[in-house]
Parts: sequence; structure tokens; C-alpha cells
Amino acid sequence: MANLNGATSDLRTKFLEVYSVLKSELLNDPAFEWTDNSRQWVERMLDYNVPGGKLNRGLSVIDSYELLKEGKELTEEEVFLASALGWCIEWLQAYFLVLDDIMDNSHTRRGQPCWFRVPKVGLIAANDGIILRNHIPRILKKHFREKPYYVDLLDLFNEVEFQTASGQMIDLITTLEGEKDLSKYSLPLHRRIVQYKTAYYSFYIPVACALLMANENLDDHIDVKNILIDMGIYFQVQDDYLDCFGDPERIGKIGTDIEDFKCSWLVVKALELCNEEQKKILFEHYGKEDPADVAKIKAIYNDINLQGVFADFESKSYEKLISSIEAQPSKAVQAVLKSFLGKIYKRQK
Amino acid sequence: MANLNGATSDLRTKFLEVYSVLKSELLNDPAFEWTDNSRQWVERMLDYNVPGGKLNRGLSVIDSYELLKEGKELTEEEVFLASALGWCIEWLQAYFLVLDDIMDNSHTRRGQPCWFRVPKVGLIAANDGIILRNHIPRILKKHFREKPYYVDLLDLFNEVEFQTASGQMIDLITTLEGEKDLSKYSLPLHRRIVQYKTAYYSFYIPVACALLMANENLDDHIDVKNILIDMGIYFQVQDDYLDCFGDPERIGKIGTDIEDFKCSWLVVKALELCNEEQKKILFEHYGKEDPADVAKIKAIYNDINLQGVFADFESKSYEKLISSIEAQPSKAVQAVLKSFLGKIYKRQK
Repeated sequence: MANLNGATSDLRTKFLEVYSVLKSELLNDPAFEWTDNSRQWVERMLDYNVPGGKLNRGLSVIDSYELLKEGKELTEEEVFLASALGWCIEWLQAYFLVLDDIMDNSHTRRGQPCWFRVPKVGLIAANDGIILRNHIPRILKKHFREKPYYVDLLDLFNEVEFQTASGQMIDLITTLEGEKDLSKYSLPLHRRIVQYKTAYYSFYIPVACALLMANENLDDHIDVKNILIDMGIYFQVQDDYLDCFGDPERIGKIGTDIEDFKCSWLVVKALELCNEEQKKILFEHYGKEDPADVAKIKAIYNDINLQGVFADFESKSYEKLISSIEAQPSKAVQAVLKSFLGKIYKRQK
Repeated sequence: MANLNGATSDLRTKFLEVYSVLKSELLNDPAFEWTDNSRQWVERMLDYNVPGGKLNRGLSVIDSYELLKEGKELTEEEVFLASALGWCIEWLQAYFLVLDDIMDNSHTRRGQPCWFRVPKVGLIAANDGIILRNHIPRILKKHFREKPYYVDLLDLFNEVEFQTASGQMIDLITTLEGEKDLSKYSLPLHRRIVQYKTAYYSFYIPVACALLMANENLDDHIDVKNILIDMGIYFQVQDDYLDCFGDPERIGKIGTDIEDFKCSWLVVKALELCNEEQKKILFEHYGKEDPADVAKIKAIYNDINLQGVFADFESKSYEKLISSIEAQPSKAVQAVLKSFLGKIYKRQK
């Protein structure tokens, strides 16, 4: 997720300090009899996989909680707890990435080899993913067991993990190797994959954590959830757009969604808008490595003016999101949602 | 786990009926927007991986709960709930097995190809493992959310999963491919691997589930936990013994622990008891495929009378376990533990 958060480097430093505390607690967890070897293994695994991202999801828990407190300065304990919840989301993300990279047979992640490609790691990485996942309830139990919202936190993380794994499943079974078939791709499918695979854990859970810390009942905020899901979908459409039309210098990678036969918003929109002749070309050339094939796809994207269609989608999404946000009864909740939206609207990276 | 349970086929039938109920609830879980494809995928995956084992862990929740109720007949609801918890343990087991088979590059499991070897499944199996794991909190939330012990159930499953994954980690990192080194193997290491990787989820959690259903506080039953862990270790030592000395007809497979360089109780005991000359042979020939190498290892096992050493271990373990059990203040708890022990003492399969 690109630069979603404009946090000051100060907050970031504090946040990283909390990582060190949590790591050292986990490496001394009394539920397990540690040896030097196992402690070193887990420490290296954590440092390799957890803190190396942009930390936007994690940092936004603190941001959101601050906004919910409407300017009242947070205590040291509140900052620590919000950071710990933020780190739980980063741990969740690390767990998904470690396993996704194995399933996708990926090569690099965050500018370094994928964990399972590191010498002597191999498929032990699958168990390391499980360990990462298991650290979340350990962190929650240590720091939140006595909070009135402890059980809601457990339920929240469980539900979001379930939804993410379910989204990953529909993604995997629709793009089953050897069954490249564009006719399976559609806008509703794209939406469903994005909603479950990305939006819950990237957009909903950080705000939900902040709401729980502020002693809110999540059942009273179904609208907030729906707005954040829609924001997550809007964010992913931007991602799909930038993969093809963004500046590789700014986004930090060269997009390969066309080559990879991805169920991108661009291709499903193209399928919807193109004529029979263009459709034939899409079916013939989508998902192939050859630059000549890719060029044919991009030519169609240009012919049907996908850039304009996207610009239209972007401004309509923004308007709809703003009006849903402003229908929220709480000004503090509005501020949280607007802050999120502000960070992603018209982003170029 | 071989035939730990002498449950009547009647109880088994009831238990399997609960599987059908839970499965159909999961396939209609409102937290996810199902499609025909995804529902079919999950149904096939569940039927392939969950109910095909011996179901001893699951059935023993019902057994244990009945004993804790001291003969009072269970209501329909109690049978259902104890069965649901039993199935959660079977789901946990399925999750571990699906992922372990990927990590170990295994071929068969329960008499059929490993799930990841089924055509079109492949590494999607890793995500299916995650789905299996995520079903547990879904089942718990649906049926136990309003119970006073709900949060304890969540904590219990979380802790046991963490311990199992940690045990799997020490097993994996000590037997890292390409680093076959017998000098790493010792009795304390064997004990640690078995305790964490097997005993918690095979012996402790079924009884802990029954205790929670009986409104007991698990903190008051630390001794019960320790006894069950010791029983789990005793069980695994039997397993290691039968792998080499058991009747392949009765145990249903031909043991390959020697070929596989397993940290078996037999080899660590042999290392402890043998002389320098024998040790040299162990180091040279353990972990090799050739039947001539295997025969050399088995000859040493005979020379140092490992069968006698095991018989001695077995009777001493039994005596120690019985006296710990009889030191328990509650007769009902004693009955639960004796029932478990009775099922495994001197087992031949």
C-alpha cells in the first residue's frame, strides 16, 4: 500500500520502539521453552518480515485513535496500546505476505528476496507464517486481557483474518494455473476479491481497533465499515490503474498485471466497454509475457480511453465517499474517515 | 494417533452428524459472500481433510465431559457443544497436517494423496490450511459467544496453536535439510519437540475443553495439564517404539524413522546407552535409505536391548502417571485421566 500515511518521523520512531518491546516480549514468551537457536530464528524472521514495510496500516491506528479523542493528548499508555494494535496489523500483513509469496512463487518483496527464498529457510517459511499469525493473540493477551474490549479485539482479528483468507481463496481459484480464461473476470468478481482480500485488513481493521480502544461498540458503526470497504476498493482500483499508467519511478516498480493475467479493474472495465473486435484481441493477448502482446492490450486501453474512465471513477468515488462520510453523526468519526480519504485521493504512488 | 478411543460406533455416528451441521453453517457463513465455486471448493476441501482420521481427539472431549458430569446424562445440547469443541480440535489437526505435508513434501496421508498433491490444488493448499484454521473461531463464535467461558476457549485454542507451531519450529530447525548431525539429538530435545508439537493439542486440549464446558477454571488444573503432557510424551515414545518394533500389519504402515533421520526416542536413548564403537556406527548409518544401513542401526538397538529399556520405561511411566492421577483431589478428574491412560497403556497399534 503506497504511502497512505503522512505520519511524522517522530511518531514513526515511537512506533518502532514499540516493535522492539513487543519483539523482546515474544522472544521471552513463557508459554514456550526457548533455546538459543529458536530465539535467534524467530528474531531474524521477525526483523526480516515485520517492520520493513511502509507501516501505514499500523500507524493509522494511532492517527485514528488520536482523532477519536478529539485533540485530547494521548497518555504514554494510550500511545503504547494503539501502537501495539497497529503492530498486530503489521504482523497480520507479514503473515499474509510470507504465505502469499510461497503460493505465488514470488521472488522479491519489499526490495529483498522473499523469506522462503532465503538460504536454509525454504518451506520452513510456511511455519514461520503460522508463527507470525500466532504472535497476534500473544500480544493481545499480554496487553489487553483485562480490557473490557478484549473479546471484541479477538473476534475482530479472527473475522478479518477469515475474510482475508476467503478473498485470497476466490483470487486463487479463479486464476487457477492452466485455466486462463478472461470470461471469468467481471466487475463484481473484482470487487469481491478486493473487498475480502485487501479492504478489511488494510482499511477496516485499523479504524476498528481505534474504535474499540475508544470503547465504541463496532455494531454501532456498520456504516463506518462500509465506507472503509468502499475506500479500500477505490484504493485498489487506483493501484490497478497505476500499475499500467503510473510513473514507474514514483511507484517504485514496473507493473506486470497484464503479463500476470491479473483480474485488474482495467481489464474488467475494458471487457465491459470494448466492442466484439477489441474483445477478441483482449482474449488473445491478455496474460502473455511478450511485449508485443502487452502493447496490444495497452492500445485497446487507450482506444477506449480507460484513463478518462478512471478519472471519472475517481471523482465519482470521491464525491460518494465524502457524502457518506458527512452523513456520519459523529464529527470525530468523520475526521478519521476524511483523514484516511485525504491520504489516498488522487495519489500518484 | 492410533485408536486412542474405544468409543462406541453410536457416539461416532452422532459425532459425524455434528460435522455435517458445522460444515453447512461454515458454507453459509454470513461473514463472506459465497459463490458456487468457492462453496464447492471449501466443501470438497473439508470432506477431504477433516473427517478422515480416527477422530480420537475429538471424541475424547465428549468422553471427558461425560466423566466430569459423573454419570448425569448429557442433554442434547451438551452433546452437541462437546462435539463442536471436539470438531474444533479435529479442524486444528487438519490444518496442521495440510501444512506439514507441504513442508515435509509428503506423498500420502490417511491412505490418500496429500491435499496439495491433488490435481489443481497445489499450493492453494497452504491457503486452505489457513481457511481450516479460521473455521475454528467461526465455530466457537457461533456456538459459544454467549457462554461465560468463551474468552477462555479463545485463549486456549490460541495458546495451544502457538505451542504446536513452536514445537514444529524446533523440529524443523533441528532437522534442517543438509545438516544431518546426530549430535544435536538428545532426550531433552526429544521431550521438548514432543511436548510442544504433539502433547498440547493431542492430550491437553481435549480435556481442557471439557473442563471449560464444566465451568472449571483452567488455572486450577495445572497438575492436570502436566499429567496430560507427560501422557502425551509417553504416547509419542510408544509411537517411536512401534515405528521400529511394532507389527506393520497392526500399525498400518511400515516405519521409516531411521531412514528419515527422525529425532526418535529410540535413537536418543541409543546414543545415551551405547559405547564409543556403537556410537560411531549410529553416526555413520542413521538417516540413510539403504536397507543395509538400516539393518546396522537395528542391530545396535538389539545389542543394547532397547526393547527391554522401553518395557522398563513403559511400566515406570505408567506407575508415575497413576500415582500423579491418584493425587488429584477430584474423583471425576481422576476418572478422566485414567480413561485416557487406559486407552494407551501397552497399546500395540
